[in-house]
Formats: sequence, C-alpha cells, structure tokens
Amino acid sequence: MSQSDPLFERVALIGIGLIGSSLAHATRRGNLAGEIVVSTRSADTLKRAEELGLGDRYEADAAKAVEGADLVILSIPVGAYGKVAEAIGPYLAKGAILSDVGSTKGTVVRDVEPHVPASVHFIPGHPIAGTEHSGPDAGFASLFEGRWAILTPPADADPAAVDKLTRFWTACGSKVDTMDPDHHDRVLAIVSHLPHIIAYNIVGTADDLEAVSKSEVIKYSASGFRDFTRLAASDPTMWRDVCLSNRDAILEMLGRFSEDLASLQRAIRWGDGDKLFDLFTRTRAVRRSIIEAGQEVDAPDFGRHPEIQPKKEQAAD
Amino acid sequence: MSQSDPLFERVALIGIGLIGSSLAHATRRGNLAGEIVVSTRSADTLKRAEELGLGDRYEADAAKAVEGADLVILSIPVGAYGKVAEAIGPYLAKGAILSDVGSTKGTVVRDVEPHVPASVHFIPGHPIAGTEHSGPDAGFASLFEGRWAILTPPADADPAAVDKLTRFWTACGSKVDTMDPDHHDRVLAIVSHLPHIIAYNIVGTADDLEAVSKSEVIKYSASGFRDFTRLAASDPTMWRDVCLSNRDAILEMLGRFSEDLASLQRAIRWGDGDKLFDLFTRTRAVRRSIIEAGQEVDAPDFGRHPEIQPKKEQAAD
Repeated sequence: MSQSDPLFERVALIGIGLIGSSLAHATRRGNLAGEIVVSTRSADTLKRAEELGLGDRYEADAAKAVEGADLVILSIPVGAYGKVAEAIGPYLAKGAILSDVGSTKGTVVRDVEPHVPASVHFIPGHPIAGTEHSGPDAGFASLFEGRWAILTPPADADPAAVDKLTRFWTACGSKVDTMDPDHHDRVLAIVSHLPHIIAYNIVGTADDLEAVSKSEVIKYSASGFRDFTRLAASDPTMWRDVCLSNRDAILEMLGRFSEDLASLQRAIRWGDGDKLFDLFTRTRAVRRSIIEAGQEVDAPDFGRHPEIQPKKEQAAD
Repeated sequence: MSQSDPLFERVALIGIGLIGSSLAHATRRGNLAGEIVVSTRSADTLKRAEELGLGDRYEADAAKAVEGADLVILSIPVGAYGKVAEAIGPYLAKGAILSDVGSTKGTVVRDVEPHVPASVHFIPGHPIAGTEHSGPDAGFASLFEGRWAILTPPADADPAAVDKLTRFWTACGSKVDTMDPDHHDRVLAIVSHLPHIIAYNIVGTADDLEAVSKSEVIKYSASGFRDFTRLAASDPTMWRDVCLSNRDAILEMLGRFSEDLASLQRAIRWGDGDKLFDLFTRTRAVRRSIIEAGQEVDAPDFGRHPEIQPKKEQAAD
C-alpha cells in the first residue's frame, strides 16, 4: 500500500446525523476511505445526504451498505443498535472492523456483540464531541479536532484492528483513549449525561412557572439561563436512549448531585455565607484547568463577543 | 444644553469590576458624562483602573467620589450596599440620581433607601448582561448592547429622573424595562440565580467523585460539562451575596427544580421513555425562541467553531 492509499477501502456509515455526517466530511478530507457508503432508514435523510454529497453510494438497506466494507460505523441512537446489529451481522465482511459512536458502551456491547461474527473486529467507540444540532446538515469536518475519542475494545481484541481504528480517529483530529465499557459509562454519566439531564430539567422548570412569564424567561435569559438551553436543545431521541441505556450510572450521579444540592440549599436557607463562598471559589479553578487542557475556548462568555477577541490580560481577582 | 452636551455632568462609578468598568467604557464611548469619577475601596484595583484610563478622576473614598455627581451608580456586591450607602448618603448632591446594577433588588431597597436624602432620586437598576470574568480589565463598551436593563423605580419616583436614567441605559445599547423589586427578584431567581447555583453545584459534585478522576472530568468535558463551568467561574463574592440576598425566591425555585428532577429521575429509573422524550422535545423550542429574540448567538455550540460560521441551513429534525 503506497503512502497515499486510503486507510480503508470502503467505509460504511450507518446513520448520517451530526456525528455520521461529520465523519463523512472528515473521512473525505483525510482521504481515509476508497469509498464512503451512507445508509439511513429515513428516505428523506438519505436523499438529503446525497444532495450534500456526503458519500459515494447511498443505501436504504444497512445490510447492503455493509457488504464489502472494511470499516462499519454505527452513528444511530443507542436504542436502535440491537435491531440494526441483527440485520447487518450476516453481511459483515470477514476481517472488517465494526465500531460505533454511541454515548453509552455497556448496553452497546450487550446489544451488538451477540450478532457479530467471530471473523469481525467489534471495537466500540465514542468521540467526545458534538453540537446541539442534529441531522446530515449539521456535520462538519473539524468537529473532532482536539477532542478525545474513547475506544472500549474487548480484552481479546486484535491489537492491529485497535491500532487501525486508532489511526482513523487520529486522522479525524482526535486524541484516542481506551478504557473498559463500565468505566466509560460512569465517566460519561458525570461529564455528559448528568449535565444534559440537569439542563433539560431546569429549562422544563422555567417553562412551567406561573409567576414568571415565558416571555420574561426569554428576554432575560442572557443572565445565565440561556447557557442551559443549548444542551437542552439536543436531539430528544438520542438523549431518551442515553437515559434508558445508562440508567444505573446516571441514577448514582443524580443521587450525588441532589445530595450536594440539598446541602447547598441548606446553606442558603441558614445564611452560611462561608460555605457558599468556599464552593463558589473551588469551582472557578475547574474551568481554568479545562481551558488549559485545550478543551474550551479561552474567551469570556464562550466567545459570544467576537469584538473583544483576542481577550485582554485579566487582572487577578 | 446643546445636542452634543453629555447627558450627565459628572458620573460617579462606585465599584469598578466587570460591570463598573463596562459602564466606564460605554459612558466614554457615548459621551454620556462630562467627567467620570471612579471609586473602589481596593487600592490595587483603583490603581489598575487608573492605568486602564477608565475614569477622569480616582477616589478611594466613595463619599468624596459622589460629591457633585448628578449620576451615581453602585457596582459592588449587594452585601456591601448598606455600609456604602450610609457612607455616601450625606454627600449625595441635591437632584442627583442614585442607581445600581445589583442582581437583587428587594434587599437593595431595604439597605440603601434609609440612607438616601429626600432630594436624591433613588432608582435601582440591573443590566441583564455579563461574562464570567471579573475586575476592571474585564469590562468592554459593547457588553450591554441588545441586552435588557431592568429599572425598579419606587411608586413615587420622579418621571423625569426615570426617563433620564432610561436614556443613559439606552445610550449604552440596552433596552429598558421597569418592574417592581419583588417581581424582579422572582424573575431573576429562575433566569439567573438558579442556573448559577445549579452550575456551581454540578461542578462541585464532579470535583468530589472518587470513581472518576479530576483529569477525566477535564479531558472529556466537551461532552457537556464544560458549559456549566462558565457560570461556575463567576465571582464568588458577588454570588454569595446574591444567594444571601434573594433567599426566599431562590429557595422557591430550588424547590420546584428539585421536584421536577425527582420526577425525571423516577422516569429514568422506571424506563418511561415517552416522558423523557416529551420533556426533551419541549425544551428544544425554548432555545429557538431565545435565538429569535436576539438574546443568543445563532450558531452551533455558542459559536465555538468559527470555521463553520455563518452557519449552514439546518435540516428539519
């Protein structure tokens, strides 16, 4: 294989929403596939993917899409994995890598593995990247740049296959970590699932008030509330499935969150200013670490004020 | 007074943090004051304000700063209002307008009003704008553009004074609403105070976990968590005082939030997918309304990906 040959001969993308279409763009940009086959069960979405030129071939039938592909990536809601795995299992090519981008990994292994032939390398994955937008129009090639992709290869995974999938994600701009599925699900429960659930919840609470009108909530949202509406605008199907698939870890994190909130509420009720000040000081350092790790923009207000970029030196507080 | 005369002869800015310094910039830009007097009790901050050229005169003593000013604006943590009002009260000029930018209004009226001479127009205010940064370096002239400023004039306020203060905020780029202090405090409890408290709380919860390392929380924060760290990086003194000053409204909103969260938690535990899907769909519309109202950037991920601006047409979901 010469230096310029693509990493894979044929990549089949099953599901072409935000992540699937971003993978299509990144695969194209990096010349990572000889052929990109796009498949989705919605005829409208498949047609839109074709209009956008996301693939080289378009198949409504996932089983047909995976034939002869040496890399197959599922980018569909995790609740649909079992059915799709059952449908494509018999058609997967020998030696192919089957991976995915799902936000939970325990149920993915449970639902997919039984349908994977022994000759296929099943290596679940999860890129830690996204926006609140959905659908084939939402994708873009740079989505994964500088973000982490987590792989959860089984203990007996073929190192060469893991390495090849790692090279794929690296070529998409990601840094790659591996861990076991259970640990993945606990980590994601706190860094992703709980934040989304809390955001959905607070937007729901605000939407239900009688004493404050919907119009007031919207007008004055720049005082904090609007930040939460971004996560709460994420794809409802995807997030329903995440909640159902990672129940135990989510319930554990919700328990801890509520316990801490009750304690904070008590400090507010009894006027314990020192306790409030200590917490509010400690949390400030966490953001600084995230910016230093290159996982957040170093600009006030998420860079919502481009007129003040690049940001001025800040005085110490 | 000719067209080009400043709106006020002398504006005294008491406190020169994010909001105070932004007011200094906006006042200068709009030629809204013949003279800007800056005062803050911290010698270092006053020196820094002078280095930045935020005012025309600098006074460590607030009482000296307000002498002869026809507009005085307090931009200090609300917990410090009583003491400062007591100190400046006797030195306020006849006919002057005394206003503020505090995030709560009930306690502000309670703590300030007793110290205000009858000849002074006390008209509390609150601009719904900010970033997570603090201090005199953090301010910028366009902070208030397109945002709302809420005034809570007393029932017997002089309409001419309210009108003049309204013109000041309008010249800073704001749209102006008036309401009574109690209603302000309930509205802000849901759109601002609750979001900050929830953000502080979740960042604290994540920081305390044993099963997930701090390094993992930081590395994978782009999956949602990092959004919360922005509000949780806000000024600790300011937010301690907000919690202590708006206790009753905050406790009411926290009660509703926790009630809704318990119900959501139950839906997750019992696998009620329809309930989850309904909530997650309803909240999506709220963000759309905020963008349509011009109170949020119309770009995915808060515009963190400038390479995809202006955003492409999104497919319907």
